[in-house]
Amino acid sequence: MGLKDIEAIAFDADDTLWENENFFREAEREYCQVMAGYAPAGETAGSLFRVEMQNMELYGYGVKAFMLSLIETSLLLSKNRVRPDQIEAIIAIGKRMLQRDVILLDHVPDLLERLYGRYRLVLASKGDLLDQERKLKKSGLLKYFHHIEIMTNKQEENYSDLLKHLDVRPERFMMVGNSLRSDVLPVIRLGGYAVHIPYFMTWEHEQMDPSEMKSDRFFELKQLHDLLTLFE
Amino acid sequence: MGLKDIEAIAFDADDTLWENENFFREAEREYCQVMAGYAPAGETAGSLFRVEMQNMELYGYGVKAFMLSLIETSLLLSKNRVRPDQIEAIIAIGKRMLQRDVILLDHVPDLLERLYGRYRLVLASKGDLLDQERKLKKSGLLKYFHHIEIMTNKQEENYSDLLKHLDVRPERFMMVGNSLRSDVLPVIRLGGYAVHIPYFMTWEHEQMDPSEMKSDRFFELKQLHDLLTLFE
Repeated sequence: MGLKDIEAIAFDADDTLWENENFFREAEREYCQVMAGYAPAGETAGSLFRVEMQNMELYGYGVKAFMLSLIETSLLLSKNRVRPDQIEAIIAIGKRMLQRDVILLDHVPDLLERLYGRYRLVLASKGDLLDQERKLKKSGLLKYFHHIEIMTNKQEENYSDLLKHLDVRPERFMMVGNSLRSDVLPVIRLGGYAVHIPYFMTWEHEQMDPSEMKSDRFFELKQLHDLLTLFE
Repeated sequence: MGLKDIEAIAFDADDTLWENENFFREAEREYCQVMAGYAPAGETAGSLFRVEMQNMELYGYGVKAFMLSLIETSLLLSKNRVRPDQIEAIIAIGKRMLQRDVILLDHVPDLLERLYGRYRLVLASKGDLLDQERKLKKSGLLKYFHHIEIMTNKQEENYSDLLKHLDVRPERFMMVGNSLRSDVLPVIRLGGYAVHIPYFMTWEHEQMDPSEMKSDRFFELKQLHDLLTLFE
């Protein structure tokens, strides 16, 4: 068994196929400006991250969860003095995020075009169902995917369910994504292949030391298009 | 072809398998109390519904969408005078909703137990992915379902995708639910069977006149357990 036996390739979406994290960071900068009268930007960002982590189990991933955490953090940081027009500005930041155009990363359609028909292509993404479906439609990439899986989490059991659903053995499955924690580690542990393509920024929650990853089923590539070199 | 040829039965979840709408109405009553200084309950409820409908395309269904609309409505109704402690109270209402126990409707496990093994049972629900997965786990019903589909919408094209995914023909598919608009009408139009089991309350958005429904593939039953009588 080896790379030549792979049947299904799953792609993460946010920051693997299209830009995402920088939209969150941009929104965070706007938010820090709204909150500037209560706390310096560094403190605001730190509090926001803590509130997001506290709410993770209850809210999960995605823009709506982010918006609710922004509002909660504003109450906290202002010691309940935040003004209604500031809450309004925060809601407007979130609504703009939900309406953004999708910006594909370099060479994405070309890569999918080349793999299409040779492999079952799967999109395996975390986040909010409605928002991910909307982005996929806007992206024009829907036609390449055999199966779309929006997951509440990306741990071993979630991938195990996905493999069962796809009816594919781990050693014939490859996951491609920008997060070592979510896209690589659980798949390697299950016996599958994983390709890490670092994005220029990583959300603190997803950070991990790449040296922890040691497996002959693990590859690190500079950009998504290099994936083709693995199959040549 | 007839009822005896049905292979797959899909169930709506909220207000079909477990209570949901009354939790929303209870939250709405609590919200009207928080807002009592700005508007009478009737006006608050009316404004909330309009804000929810305006946000539907952007936010979709579910508790997080509801929370964001509650906050937006509070800004509107108070003419931007709502107090931070009131925003805090609104967030608390939503968080309690997300942590509620699941209350199954009468005879649900018994019904599923009797159908299990004879039909492919599917859960087809709208709403927030994380919240629906959490409710399904809490419900103890996961073991009965061959497939879980959380849908962003329940229109003809969504059911058409589901049927394709299940690889079942419409005339061998039955949908069971409490909403004529979401569970019955689109399935009848596709050529499938649909069973309506009215819940004692229906969200205004889902309301429809049952007399519009005329088909020999449509059944209206008083309670979920009566489904068995169709197959005897």
